[in-house]
Amino acid sequence: MKAFQDHYAEDVAHCYGCGTLNTHGHRIRTYWDGDETVTRFTPQPFHTAVPGFVYGGLIASLVDCHGTGSAAAAMYRSQGRAMDTSPALRFVTGSLQVDYLKPTPLGVELELRGTIKEIRGRKVIVETTVRANGVATATGTVVAVQMPDNFGAAA
Amino acid sequence: MKAFQDHYAEDVAHCYGCGTLNTHGHRIRTYWDGDETVTRFTPQPFHTAVPGFVYGGLIASLVDCHGTGSAAAAMYRSQGRAMDTSPALRFVTGSLQVDYLKPTPLGVELELRGTIKEIRGRKVIVETTVRANGVATATGTVVAVQMPDNFGAAA
Repeated sequence: MKAFQDHYAEDVAHCYGCGTLNTHGHRIRTYWDGDETVTRFTPQPFHTAVPGFVYGGLIASLVDCHGTGSAAAAMYRSQGRAMDTSPALRFVTGSLQVDYLKPTPLGVELELRGTIKEIRGRKVIVETTVRANGVATATGTVVAVQMPDNFGAAA
Repeated sequence: MKAFQDHYAEDVAHCYGCGTLNTHGHRIRTYWDGDETVTRFTPQPFHTAVPGFVYGGLIASLVDCHGTGSAAAAMYRSQGRAMDTSPALRFVTGSLQVDYLKPTPLGVELELRGTIKEIRGRKVIVETTVRANGVATATGTVVAVQMPDNFGAAA
């Protein structure tokens, strides 16, 4: 089954978190599960905070790219379109909030499960829960914004 | 000059973001500049979002570890203690908020500059601005919590 990220055009497939073409990166893959979006990811041994636990920056990164991917998928779905249809819809992060509930154990697969809280104009809000061994260890909210055609032009 | 992170004990120096012993990681270094804390970091070419711009997850990671390091330094300073004195004070992230103001260009050194907004009990709130070429591209807030002695025991 194709993941959301498999539909990204080549010029936007280099993201360290989710780009299929970034060989250094996490290359996360996200799918629909009913009305929820799911990403599964097993951190590397060096993604450590205190030994035995996952580094919070990785969790933030996963929530971020899971969120923007979910936002794109949700916008396609709200328009009744498949993700391989044009024009392409890609999202960037406007804001990211992560709450760390408890230490996330290293060495097991993490599950990120997202719900689409709101679609308004070019903005999508995605709420995500991170679980390890079925236990919620972090929650996050991404406000994703549809990427403008002139992204970066004024940077 | 020693960075805050150079004072971390060996058992807490493995963090991917800031641990001096994590050879895979970012190994950020943070210093006082008056009442502000400063981290300078040049992303790698593969830390990309859309080509030419820094991946937001890296920015979140930098804000996170800059924040916890700043929190530790601020707590030592508030107690009139040098960072190499015992008992050691280390902080973990309770929550992380990042607002992306504009795309962050890749290929230049980033400057993170933090201010200590509040120290209350075991909690320190650090606000950080990320700049590239002197232009603010992101702001972030970390609520850092002093690491309990039994960190991870109940995970």
